[in-house]
Amino acid sequence: MLTNSRVVRIEWRHCDPAGIVYYPRYFSIFDTSTTYLFEKALGKTKFQFLKHYDFVGYPMVDTRARFFIPARFGDDVTVETAVTEIKRSSFSIIHRILKEDSALAVEGFETRVWVGKDPDDPDKIKSRPIPQEVVDRLSQ
Amino acid sequence: MLTNSRVVRIEWRHCDPAGIVYYPRYFSIFDTSTTYLFEKALGKTKFQFLKHYDFVGYPMVDTRARFFIPARFGDDVTVETAVTEIKRSSFSIIHRILKEDSALAVEGFETRVWVGKDPDDPDKIKSRPIPQEVVDRLSQ
Amino acid sequence: MLTNSRVVRIEWRHCDPAGIVYYPRYFSIFDTSTTYLFEKALGKTKFQFLKHYDFVGYPMVDTRARFFIPARFGDDVTVETAVTEIKRSSFSIIHRILKEDSALAVEGFETRVWVGKDPDDPDKIKSRPIPQEVVDRLSQ
Amino acid sequence: MLTNSRVVRIEWRHCDPAGIVYYPRYFSIFDTSTTYLFEKALGKTKFQFLKHYDFVGYPMVDTRARFFIPARFGDDVTVETAVTEIKRSSFSIIHRILKEDSALAVEGFETRVWVGKDPDDPDKIKSRPIPQEVVDRLSQ
Repeated sequence: MLTNSRVVRIEWRHCDPAGIVYYPRYFSIFDTSTTYLFEKALGKTKFQFLKHYDFVGYPMVDTRARFFIPARFGDDVTVETAVTEIKRSSFSIIHRILKEDSALAVEGFETRVWVGKDPDDPDKIKSRPIPQEVVDRLSQ
Repeated sequence: MLTNSRVVRIEWRHCDPAGIVYYPRYFSIFDTSTTYLFEKALGKTKFQFLKHYDFVGYPMVDTRARFFIPARFGDDVTVETAVTEIKRSSFSIIHRILKEDSALAVEGFETRVWVGKDPDDPDKIKSRPIPQEVVDRLSQ
Repeated sequence: MLTNSRVVRIEWRHCDPAGIVYYPRYFSIFDTSTTYLFEKALGKTKFQFLKHYDFVGYPMVDTRARFFIPARFGDDVTVETAVTEIKRSSFSIIHRILKEDSALAVEGFETRVWVGKDPDDPDKIKSRPIPQEVVDRLSQ
Repeated sequence: MLTNSRVVRIEWRHCDPAGIVYYPRYFSIFDTSTTYLFEKALGKTKFQFLKHYDFVGYPMVDTRARFFIPARFGDDVTVETAVTEIKRSSFSIIHRILKEDSALAVEGFETRVWVGKDPDDPDKIKSRPIPQEVVDRLSQ
């Protein structure tokens, strides 16, 4: 399955009065990491691939994170992201955030669903099968 | 065990280009809901109770959320928060976000640890026993 | 001109490692305050009035804030919001954030433009005249 | 005066239901850009230079932004940051965000003050003279 790795500088804006990353922001970091994985797989920015495959996004169905070591502003962390499972209209991802010495700081799990506009109500969204081309590229 | 309920207006700032709540922001809503539960239990604002019990906070150890129905800006949702377990230096919380018709939109689970400054390194944090008074008030 | 006032509890999530509100978050507080002013004027949620007047929003053209007194988590602040000027397709707003003792903590200024989808390119936005009904209600 | 330039990928998390950057997030981008300017000047991360010069930060006193062209997720923008003025305990910064074709999208202005803990009340902050070494390095 496809994997991607990127370095994220923990910034002042990520951190709370305890001086460590405010944990909801790890989910933004994970979300962006999933985007980068798709961009790598599909060779397009998210703006481009939403248009290309004519869908609305891949909203979260179920996510979990476990926090082992706090990170603070000034830390450079590595985010390793991998596809772990692909079903008909959903897929699962794992993220591992490593501190400089490769210690595991945070681990994240996600299951997301591929959605388009609901044909019966354009204000709503509805799951759709993941295009085969996307499945193939994520499965590399 | 103690419970709390509050109404949250979903705002434009919560929502993403798909027009629904950007899911990492549910974790901020949950975090604030946990604070309100503690404020109800302890009769103090978070600023006050951190000082009163001389600790740094209750960082997240493990959290999970399941997403059933999207919410969009303009929705008023109810967040029901309850303590589910209290151990020596950690505790668990459940949050349920209900839409207007009482449909379950999001469910969140958290395990957090009570920490103070590490006596050996003031830049670090270290778990501590939860004060008995706090345990008693959360157990009401 | 129309005015609105609301109380905002400063939360842990608003604050940075210095323990005070991370200033970009005041702009979110201002933005939401502008929404509440419109909701008061128009008797609809933002979701509803975007649909009703068939427009995309009122993006910011020019904004400024001056910071006099820091606020920290646990503070309850009052946000007073008023329309100061209405032009053909733009309008200006002032926000004043007061601490408990009515001391002025932050002052914000905004000029925004009323926009719809660009008829020549649905990916772009284009300014439009503010509907007379909206002008009338903001001018109360 | 010192300048710095960096490329920022506009992400899904930056954008609102209109599909463009939610403007308060530009202030986070500016704030991080100011940090990078200081890190370049001082050869230390923010975590390190706060410790080295024993101060709490440089909170905002006055900031303004003007928005010319919207940016949307997938855009790579360049942020050019420069010191424009240094006084005894405050300094001013300008940021210019350029889209791919060098068109000016957003312009930001900031005046900040150098602060430490108030010797009379450790819960409060108080302005201090900017160290001469910092002035010298920012003036390069």
